[in-house]
Amino acid sequence: MTYCVAVKVKAGLVFLSDSRTNAGVDDISTTRKMSVFTKSNDRSLVLLSAGNLAITQSVKTILKTRKNKFFWAAKSLYEIAEIIGECIREVNRRDGEALKKNGLEFSCSFILGGQIPGEDIRLFKIYSAGNFIEADEESLYFQIGESKYGKPILDRVLDSNMTTEAAAKCLLLSMDSTIRSNVSVGMPLELLEYKIRSEKTINYKLVKDGDEEYERIKNVWNAYLKNGFKKLANFSWDKTLNFLKE
Amino acid sequence: MTYCVAVKVKAGLVFLSDSRTNAGVDDISTTRKMSVFTKSNDRSLVLLSAGNLAITQSVKTILKTRKNKFFWAAKSLYEIAEIIGECIREVNRRDGEALKKNGLEFSCSFILGGQIPGEDIRLFKIYSAGNFIEADEESLYFQIGESKYGKPILDRVLDSNMTTEAAAKCLLLSMDSTIRSNVSVGMPLELLEYKIRSEKTINYKLVKDGDEEYERIKNVWNAYLKNGFKKLANFSWDKTLNFLKE
Repeated sequence: MTYCVAVKVKAGLVFLSDSRTNAGVDDISTTRKMSVFTKSNDRSLVLLSAGNLAITQSVKTILKTRKNKFFWAAKSLYEIAEIIGECIREVNRRDGEALKKNGLEFSCSFILGGQIPGEDIRLFKIYSAGNFIEADEESLYFQIGESKYGKPILDRVLDSNMTTEAAAKCLLLSMDSTIRSNVSVGMPLELLEYKIRSEKTINYKLVKDGDEEYERIKNVWNAYLKNGFKKLANFSWDKTLNFLKE
Repeated sequence: MTYCVAVKVKAGLVFLSDSRTNAGVDDISTTRKMSVFTKSNDRSLVLLSAGNLAITQSVKTILKTRKNKFFWAAKSLYEIAEIIGECIREVNRRDGEALKKNGLEFSCSFILGGQIPGEDIRLFKIYSAGNFIEADEESLYFQIGESKYGKPILDRVLDSNMTTEAAAKCLLLSMDSTIRSNVSVGMPLELLEYKIRSEKTINYKLVKDGDEEYERIKNVWNAYLKNGFKKLANFSWDKTLNFLKE
């Protein structure tokens, strides 16, 4: 399994994916779960993927080859989500029937985020059917893959007024909860911060196993939770029943 | 959906289930998700259920009627888990084929805990196939139903040396995380503490919507998490890339 999560706050976007391959930020670089597409002075887009790897790899290959021209010419991120939806349907037409015969579901999902010149930053989640939804202030994050373990901390803490740095920490705590409870999600992680406004920068970090800063955040948080838990007061009972009287 | 969770610590057992019906502790009382079976001076057993309601209700009905004699005569909790497994298989023989024809899975799960005279307390999880596993010190809790949201806090905090009161608080936080992130799990809750040793008592609490103590625990915890989150230090990035230069 995979766990990927992305959030849109007013200050920008933050993306986090688990991964077991190395990764970097280059012109049209692709790693297993986080892909960054950049064109100098124009657009930088981030794509996270989950689901059947044969499907997601094919979708990305079609995007970078046959759909390449449309991808770079698109006038909005909505159009790019449409193009990715078309790529998914193309793979489904080719592989869907055969997968079904082998008892496999056609399963993939993507998170797409970034900024096209002339637009604000946008964030989309794209489903197996090629349809998609967009994040807004009420629904500011998307998860794909093994999403349930890490959802509570997002629901508690995320807020569209927070900084991208704070959002990044929240995503890391969400990932930490997931990794602790599910062995199919693992290190290293890829974290990407997409800052708009005056800065217009992408900050990237490959968080390897044993990374000092990640270890610190995890350990501080874990100790803090355990400590707070100890301080919670007890409560009273409605009824008491004796059993096994001797 | 349902969310039920139970834990075995050295001091006893704690059970928690969500519910939308009223509940009480009486001689062989049954509520929707938590059933308490008691026999004065002998045994008190607790059963939590999740899955298809038609199946779990039938299992409990067979247990209380046709299997009633075996249930009260069993010499160990292991034997009772076997009896419940037989009840599940009986319902499967009757309904399984018809469910399948209607595209429905035969799906149910149970958590069984308590003490039979002559034994220590024990805790079992029973699956749809009627097979079952037992909790031990390494694997001290069981969840059924919508289990993923509430798992991280259990993994962080539960410890077999903690008191049943502390374990009860941990289960409530696990339930709170689940309810916040999933609308299909809801109030009221049923919480039951099964204390062994000198006390030999069952404490029961029906936690209704707006319950003062539950609200306090939830709010204190939520404020504590948000406060701790703010204090986490930022971290540094590996690479920075400019985009959309103007």
